[in-house]
Amino acid sequence: MVTPITRAHLEHWDETDELGVLREEFVLPDGLIYLCGNSLGVLPRAASERVRTTVDAEWGQGLVGSWNTAGWFDKPVTVGDRLARLVGADSGEVLAADSTSVNLFKVLSAALALHPDRKTVVAEADSFPTDLYLLDGVTEMLGGYEHRLVENVEGALDDQVAVLLVNHVNYRTGRLRDMAALTELAHRHGVLTVWDLCHSAGALPVHLNACEADFAVGCTYKYLNGGPGSPAFVYVARRHQERARQPLSGWMGHASPFTFDVGYTPSDGIRRFSAGTPPIVSYAPLEASLDIWDRVDLDDVRAKSVKLTGLFIELAAGLDVVSPTDSTLRGSQVSLRHPESYAVMRALVDRGVVGDFRAPDMMRFGFTPLYTRYTDVWDALEILREILATESWRDPKYAVRAKVT
Amino acid sequence: MVTPITRAHLEHWDETDELGVLREEFVLPDGLIYLCGNSLGVLPRAASERVRTTVDAEWGQGLVGSWNTAGWFDKPVTVGDRLARLVGADSGEVLAADSTSVNLFKVLSAALALHPDRKTVVAEADSFPTDLYLLDGVTEMLGGYEHRLVENVEGALDDQVAVLLVNHVNYRTGRLRDMAALTELAHRHGVLTVWDLCHSAGALPVHLNACEADFAVGCTYKYLNGGPGSPAFVYVARRHQERARQPLSGWMGHASPFTFDVGYTPSDGIRRFSAGTPPIVSYAPLEASLDIWDRVDLDDVRAKSVKLTGLFIELAAGLDVVSPTDSTLRGSQVSLRHPESYAVMRALVDRGVVGDFRAPDMMRFGFTPLYTRYTDVWDALEILREILATESWRDPKYAVRAKVT
Repeated sequence: MVTPITRAHLEHWDETDELGVLREEFVLPDGLIYLCGNSLGVLPRAASERVRTTVDAEWGQGLVGSWNTAGWFDKPVTVGDRLARLVGADSGEVLAADSTSVNLFKVLSAALALHPDRKTVVAEADSFPTDLYLLDGVTEMLGGYEHRLVENVEGALDDQVAVLLVNHVNYRTGRLRDMAALTELAHRHGVLTVWDLCHSAGALPVHLNACEADFAVGCTYKYLNGGPGSPAFVYVARRHQERARQPLSGWMGHASPFTFDVGYTPSDGIRRFSAGTPPIVSYAPLEASLDIWDRVDLDDVRAKSVKLTGLFIELAAGLDVVSPTDSTLRGSQVSLRHPESYAVMRALVDRGVVGDFRAPDMMRFGFTPLYTRYTDVWDALEILREILATESWRDPKYAVRAKVT
Repeated sequence: MVTPITRAHLEHWDETDELGVLREEFVLPDGLIYLCGNSLGVLPRAASERVRTTVDAEWGQGLVGSWNTAGWFDKPVTVGDRLARLVGADSGEVLAADSTSVNLFKVLSAALALHPDRKTVVAEADSFPTDLYLLDGVTEMLGGYEHRLVENVEGALDDQVAVLLVNHVNYRTGRLRDMAALTELAHRHGVLTVWDLCHSAGALPVHLNACEADFAVGCTYKYLNGGPGSPAFVYVARRHQERARQPLSGWMGHASPFTFDVGYTPSDGIRRFSAGTPPIVSYAPLEASLDIWDRVDLDDVRAKSVKLTGLFIELAAGLDVVSPTDSTLRGSQVSLRHPESYAVMRALVDRGVVGDFRAPDMMRFGFTPLYTRYTDVWDALEILREILATESWRDPKYAVRAKVT
């Protein structure tokens, strides 16, 4: 006979959680259970001061000289190097710049150009949509490409395929792909892989180099807590860097940006994946967040994540769980299906439990081991069950759609 | 007989300068004469507080809900609308997003697609180089294009030309183009115009609509004081918006980004020139700067700019002035040529006069009417003349090149 879990058990788990001390490093509004770090991570406590230094000291006092003295010019590279460890890459393989969408344009262009004789791209039908939009943008501009948008990407790979574009963790279901196995299968057909890490970077250990991945992109404002719209990143495996070219050939990617040559000569290494002038102020919170990440072992993050999501699924017995129950197939979120998910989520937010809604009928709950507690899982589900039992979500005010949902 | 100008005259000019009060709105380090606002504008005093609100209140407390409640989602459009007045555009014609380089990629692609039968682009041989790099990036990807990089763009226009790409103010010489006349000439040949406003926006009145310009891009971190790498802008004349498509088709440009459709349907209006998630924190200083710009008439800015640059040229008699002496042909900078410009500029910076160097032999001095005083011009030239007279620039320490020069 199994003893049922009680809140007291979970208080004990929180007290003995080795990552628990990190919660103090973040700002968490009083009374809020924030299970939306897979959409926007919370504010690192040190970020405000870091931003103040960038604005008041570096910009205000250092002015244009800060491009040298404050390391602004190198931010995409130095911040990229700090991100590299978190995604299993080496120094010089990751650049922090632009948005995920813009970076996808760069790597898709670069990957397709490495395979000029192949005119087919495989991607997931349930990909994060912007990935498919960018794929359209790139291939319409190039002309002559065929897309295979499929559920079973493994079955769609053959020797005609130039590039496989996949999400490491599915944004709706939280399903986690086996990067090593899929990359190996792709390579067996000579297919180059482009991984979207938006929902895995900072959520679990990513091993780009160990898996021999080719290209990847990801954002830093979800699990990595870099702030709204913080610089995204792009990964290019070292073995491709010399031949890989991307068309957003702005001056920051030039071999010698300040000689102002008329012709474009790409920089050596990852810097050639730069385009224009980087948004310096937006790097500051991300650097404050990376100071915390420097203290963290991603295996510990993963262990706690599996425990958090497993606990949620266990306590959610009887609800319609969409995410895989096998933890090896699951990222760090759990999604529930309910025909009135929009209203239910609005009611939850009103009660201080923040997840989000994804059309047409899904509630997402993200679990961020650096600041989520086991008791948060308990409390969130208590409130959800009460909302469902009392049907308080039927209040008409919860039916009004916000612009961003 | 003309009375020679004295410093006392200029003190009087400063005292009676109607824009003079605005200097108080900016942070200017003690003892510094900052003539580099054409590279990086200074910090608006209100920017720190504005950033603090965005970080601590909107992000820290509002979290993901701030995409709605703090207007984050609409920042590219609302900030774009505020920029519109400064460049002679209407509401809904300007979007604030990404970098100038990335925006150039968008508008060049869009403009070329409007002219599928023409395969020639005209641009200036002495264009800001990143413009040419992006032109290369776009046309190499499309294939089959010819570039005419010429000194005399007027003479290179004919009915084969799809697009004319020009800088409103030349980054090295400060030469100002006649936007109305050149646009009219281009249109006579059916050529679409793409204007780079980096060195004119905030420096002088720009009349995109009155001149019937087609497309434009520009940055906000120079004369507009938005901060290092602050969001750039893109202008698309209303008459082109319905047909214009750009290939960086990220979700923020989708007609309905949160329905997560698999297919891309561009938003109506300027929003279709969005790509990925905007760097929210970097918009905050720009908005603080725009609060100041709301109080300013650009004709007053131009009048003071002409007086500042004219004074500099007058007081620089005997030096090798590269910029046009005719003020109607001049932006808001004056460039001097000297064979040892690099060392001379280093010596100037050491004495508290900040301009910059542009290879191979040019010193640039930018005049920003919101915070530059007439006495600054006098004092800067006094110090420059002393450095040249004593040859203090020959100190070997001034020969050491910084990474960013």
